Amino acid sequence: MNVILLSGGSGKRLWPLSNEVRSKQFLKLFEREDKTYESMAQRVVRQIRSVSANANITVTTGMQQKSAVRNQLGDVVDVCVEPARRDTFPAIVLAAAYLKKKKDLSLDDVMIVCPVDPYADDHYFKNFELLERVAASGQSNLTLMGISPTYPSEKYGYIVTQEWDNRDSYVRRVVEFKEKPGTKEAECLIRKGALWNSGVFAFRTGYILDIAAKYVDDTDYMYLFENYEKLPQISFDYAVAEQEKNMGCIEYKGRWKDVGTWNTLAEEMSSDTLGNVRLADNCKGVNVINELEIPILACGLENVIIAASADGIIVSEKYASSFIKPYVESMDQRVMYKEKSWGEYRVLNESRYAMSIRLHIRSGKAMSYHCHHNRDEIWIVLNGKGMITIGERTKVAGIGEVVVLPAGVRHSIEAVTDMEVMEIQLGESVSDSDVERFAFE
Amino acid sequence: MNVILLSGGSGKRLWPLSNEVRSKQFLKLFEREDKTYESMAQRVVRQIRSVSANANITVTTGMQQKSAVRNQLGDVVDVCVEPARRDTFPAIVLAAAYLKKKKDLSLDDVMIVCPVDPYADDHYFKNFELLERVAASGQSNLTLMGISPTYPSEKYGYIVTQEWDNRDSYVRRVVEFKEKPGTKEAECLIRKGALWNSGVFAFRTGYILDIAAKYVDDTDYMYLFENYEKLPQISFDYAVAEQEKNMGCIEYKGRWKDVGTWNTLAEEMSSDTLGNVRLADNCKGVNVINELEIPILACGLENVIIAASADGIIVSEKYASSFIKPYVESMDQRVMYKEKSWGEYRVLNESRYAMSIRLHIRSGKAMSYHCHHNRDEIWIVLNGKGMITIGERTKVAGIGEVVVLPAGVRHSIEAVTDMEVMEIQLGESVSDSDVERFAFE
Repeated sequence: MNVILLSGGSGKRLWPLSNEVRSKQFLKLFEREDKTYESMAQRVVRQIRSVSANANITVTTGMQQKSAVRNQLGDVVDVCVEPARRDTFPAIVLAAAYLKKKKDLSLDDVMIVCPVDPYADDHYFKNFELLERVAASGQSNLTLMGISPTYPSEKYGYIVTQEWDNRDSYVRRVVEFKEKPGTKEAECLIRKGALWNSGVFAFRTGYILDIAAKYVDDTDYMYLFENYEKLPQISFDYAVAEQEKNMGCIEYKGRWKDVGTWNTLAEEMSSDTLGNVRLADNCKGVNVINELEIPILACGLENVIIAASADGIIVSEKYASSFIKPYVESMDQRVMYKEKSWGEYRVLNESRYAMSIRLHIRSGKAMSYHCHHNRDEIWIVLNGKGMITIGERTKVAGIGEVVVLPAGVRHSIEAVTDMEVMEIQLGESVSDSDVERFAFE
Repeated sequence: MNVILLSGGSGKRLWPLSNEVRSKQFLKLFEREDKTYESMAQRVVRQIRSVSANANITVTTGMQQKSAVRNQLGDVVDVCVEPARRDTFPAIVLAAAYLKKKKDLSLDDVMIVCPVDPYADDHYFKNFELLERVAASGQSNLTLMGISPTYPSEKYGYIVTQEWDNRDSYVRRVVEFKEKPGTKEAECLIRKGALWNSGVFAFRTGYILDIAAKYVDDTDYMYLFENYEKLPQISFDYAVAEQEKNMGCIEYKGRWKDVGTWNTLAEEMSSDTLGNVRLADNCKGVNVINELEIPILACGLENVIIAASADGIIVSEKYASSFIKPYVESMDQRVMYKEKSWGEYRVLNESRYAMSIRLHIRSGKAMSYHCHHNRDEIWIVLNGKGMITIGERTKVAGIGEVVVLPAGVRHSIEAVTDMEVMEIQLGESVSDSDVERFAFE
């Protein structure tokens, strides 16, 4: 089974836990049976593997999220990096070309496209086997998975179906597909028995590459990667699903939820609080997620969500939490927490000429060999042990080691055990983009 | 005019802005006409000076608060440090002995005792002149200031008065004084026309020292300081006011408020928010005080107070905010922010072997010459310029200076301009008490 997981979105609706570089699908908020926490992305990959242990899973995402995907999902998934964020149609085309080239998929092999973050029962993923079989049979060009709608939402696509004679009884013929209708039209579609589109699509690789060929001269992976901007910036739903005449649909009847806002997320939390939190007895329907080390005390509140991270703090009545996006967008702020290929960092303090950052470097991981042109750096090892390279020299560094790295001096660090390092950046202007990377000689 | 300001209390009711070392009276939350902010202590001193420019003001407080008093009130007030916290009776006795010795007060000179934090109009302090005149005349041993009660509180003392023939018409004779009655008794006292005790007392210095002599052999300041534990741990209200037969009372009729809980404080805030805060339009009656650098976003809330500091975050319905004390007391936490004689510090990060602290050292101020026995320290200058002494050597230090201070090495820092310094403490066990101070040789 070939599954493409679409991992997009900056997720401002779950601010301050999600931000430009940390999307909602990577928040470890869901408790497993063994009391550890997993993210939506981890949950989905685990569920797919429980259905198909050898599934060939590829995550398509932007450069910004590559480290998060690698850190959370490890090497059991492939990552197809989009050269720019351009919507789901180009992302799916690129992923198809990637699978064809890197995984030797034939044009007749079936791909199943799925969002990286549906909150659903395992049965949702069990349906992938049926989708694959229907798509492989060629009875429809594109096979969808529908879900019974609960209200006339303007956010989803709607699928109107009818029975399909002489076919697998699970599959119905799609007679109408309408992406994001207005409320009135959605009401009318629901009356006709329409289903919501779950965002899961199954089709043969050749099908999507043929459609791509209308826009580009070549559908080879390298060509598409280098000419990505030639693919139109449009969603797969508008570009493909709304146009296709020969579509089938199967229905998923289990639990399904779009856990994209604080109030929907709160409903799925296994406990009311996460982190250092004290909830007074007079609180009702209060959920608190605290990623900070300092405590949060909540008293006398009803139906309120509180979430705190290095980026900020939100306190919102639950229903109102669905509408925070414009406020978050109006706040211009630096990202204070970021996952990196070697671990993570958190900004602790900013002043006129200095920025203090706590680095966590995972055992066995290393930074690239790099230098900065407009800032000096100082590293102090707070915990763990590693190898620090300064210029041509490498030395072992343990707790208390102080290393001064003047601008222009090439440096790197490799953790032998998990390391905690204080990095102090000093200079007139400190910027993420002031970095030049080198290969070790 | 001799005024003793009683500065006590750990102020858990205003957590997380107040804590063991930072009492509510030092929170700069009150906007002045020039748009700067002042604390309750600063406001009271300013108001007393506006009535009596040359008032001799002495703050009596514990060692923990000495730096905060000095930083906020400067050298225009004296500080009488209590050797231990023992309640208001011993504190007032010690202050009387202090004034007698250090300020050459005679036994007939009048002292006015006042809490450091009444939120009142200037007229409240204008009454001090009248109190002084009454106390000096000797017509009563102890003269109080009463306030019209608004509800049968169990927190205050109650004063029942009657007219006093042939005396100043402003002064009434006290026929009953009852400290902290139960609600039923308070209701009864209010029906009798009782006033609340404002906590302001006027008396001759000899009066209180005579009472003290019942408990101790000597009422000399140095003796009392060294034998402070011999004075009973009791409030002035119980020890003196409830016992005294000859008391007068004047009434204050202006605005007065005990700004000791979040809901009462919120009412006096000149703007709904302080600090980095975004309040959505759908909030009503919401007050937010944010001392952190990260933003707070509030949405869809009604009658809620939010306050955030380096110590923690509270989110409380306003009425419920009066009852947070037991929850705060149940949270065992390190103080993350502290005012010092040389400025202030804030804990930024704690890990197994290291604590990272940001120091602000005020221009012209210096740390004591000291060393630690069980930890190394590293200083990195982030901003400003100063002189750093390590062992016998002193050098100029500017931005980017890195100083390593192994355990046992004596060191100090003096700021030439305002300095920001990152201090990293490294050791098996890092403790506030691991410090030995020395005189410069």
